[in-house]
Amino acid sequence: PSGYALVANSKCANAATGKRGFRDALDICAFTARSFGVKTDEVLVASTGVIGAFLPVAKMKKGISDLRENFLKNPCSPTDFADSIMTTDTVRKISSFGNFWACAKGSGMINPDMATFLCFILTDARLAPGMKKIFREEADVFNRMSVDGEMSTNDSVFLISSMKKTISESRFRKDLAAVCGEIAAKIISDGEGRKKIIEVHVTGARSEAEARQLADFLAASPLIKTAFNGESPNWGRILSRTGASRVSMNTEKLSVYICGTPVYRGGPLRFNDKNLRGLLRKQEVSFKVDLAAGGGECVFATTDFSEEYVKINAGYLS
Amino acid sequence: PSGYALVANSKCANAATGKRGFRDALDICAFTARSFGVKTDEVLVASTGVIGAFLPVAKMKKGISDLRENFLKNPCSPTDFADSIMTTDTVRKISSFGNFWACAKGSGMINPDMATFLCFILTDARLAPGMKKIFREEADVFNRMSVDGEMSTNDSVFLISSMKKTISESRFRKDLAAVCGEIAAKIISDGEGRKKIIEVHVTGARSEAEARQLADFLAASPLIKTAFNGESPNWGRILSRTGASRVSMNTEKLSVYICGTPVYRGGPLRFNDKNLRGLLRKQEVSFKVDLAAGGGECVFATTDFSEEYVKINAGYLS
Repeated sequence: PSGYALVANSKCANAATGKRGFRDALDICAFTARSFGVKTDEVLVASTGVIGAFLPVAKMKKGISDLRENFLKNPCSPTDFADSIMTTDTVRKISSFGNFWACAKGSGMINPDMATFLCFILTDARLAPGMKKIFREEADVFNRMSVDGEMSTNDSVFLISSMKKTISESRFRKDLAAVCGEIAAKIISDGEGRKKIIEVHVTGARSEAEARQLADFLAASPLIKTAFNGESPNWGRILSRTGASRVSMNTEKLSVYICGTPVYRGGPLRFNDKNLRGLLRKQEVSFKVDLAAGGGECVFATTDFSEEYVKINAGYLS
Repeated sequence: PSGYALVANSKCANAATGKRGFRDALDICAFTARSFGVKTDEVLVASTGVIGAFLPVAKMKKGISDLRENFLKNPCSPTDFADSIMTTDTVRKISSFGNFWACAKGSGMINPDMATFLCFILTDARLAPGMKKIFREEADVFNRMSVDGEMSTNDSVFLISSMKKTISESRFRKDLAAVCGEIAAKIISDGEGRKKIIEVHVTGARSEAEARQLADFLAASPLIKTAFNGESPNWGRILSRTGASRVSMNTEKLSVYICGTPVYRGGPLRFNDKNLRGLLRKQEVSFKVDLAAGGGECVFATTDFSEEYVKINAGYLS
């Protein structure tokens, strides 16, 4: 197919807007199609922002018209686009590797599936049938990140290709994994109010699914997140949250590590408190729960909970 | 039975302490039994505080010995007891009504089941067989409150009777409901960092269980809680969180109210923004989701999320 256009907007999610919201989106598609000489169903839309607000349709049409007028005279750069989609984002999120270039937005309401997150991946790679599965597998890293445990109404990852270049599946996977990984890291790094980047690692679960379920649940814990904010080795909160999950476990076998330091194995372990507090003062920290029940494993990325997060989200709509 | 003793301590949960923790608890029971001339299995223990820390057994035995020495000379008052169990609590929590007196502790890690919450209810009412069920029903109010969505390792409600007075079941229920309700309100009112007391009301669910499931999930939402902290009528976050729950719903029928004001019914409603913001500036605020699918209903109490909450919990163990 050819002639695709994509309209992305920030600050308005066009979610929970009922029939009018649906009509507004179709209206934007039709207007864009007429403006750029493509078909209406060749126009994609992507919105994030306040839920329940209507799209500023007239303002958007004006922007689309202006863009058409100036498109060839004064083409905008990819970085302009990356900047234009920012809402509470504080930094531009771009990644490029091999045959791929990507940009994304998102910093709050970040949780599976799949975060208030828009990601646009561009490539020249000709998309072969087997690559859809690879795309899903590699984009799944965006389902293993959380800022605040809040599932979003609005999220999409777009893979857009010029279809100009033939590359191997292994090259496709490698390049795609690199850009997805870097974008995910940038999302977490810009998580609202983030002081720490926390790697949550679950091993020894009975299945991958259980490992992911526990990692997701641990990553959304206010008490674990405030403990990391306070740089405090409060492994009791990790163990307590593990116990509150629906995952079956044997607490006599279970182990907990903070920043690589074993702190619990069937009971509290002695550890060098001063050393561990030193590690917790770093920006990148981690903890691991080993359930010792099987081979299921999951690595999940999250942030701490800060006073700044509250400040940002108390004021968001005001 | 007669001769019961109860040992409660704050600041150490004696949870995740393995076999040593269990032995410590039994040791305290045996020591108390010897000190006061009761049987070991007539001593109850109740601990809350840091998870994973061992009980200061020697210190506790010293306290128990001192208490025995001075018990008749200088009996401590019920308010001394109520004060002694406080951890991050900022106010003493006592209630009395009719034939009941109660005190409790708890202000963080508050969520079903049943919160880091200890409640001691004293009565002269002779406990008849049917009253156990009534006790469970009325104490269930403690399972409809949340401060931070964190389930606890340590919680108990004790009902202790002198068995001296015969009262009717209806009187028993009425008095008990009054003290349980007041204690629950005091717990929420003292929720860590609390600026607002939020009533979460779910109606029209297919069942009581679904209503409770949704209310619980809404009450734990960081984005709803920060919106109330910011006194912002962000109904989109309420709707979004409702959609993220596992409860089945028809968004074309669903209604959302904030402080009694309808803001959504199958789509956004117009409302007087200035009036609603006025209501949101009050200390006691509310929101309601009506699923319009059945008769299931639940009223749940929670708090907002504040910068102060983060401050308290980042520093807790440091």
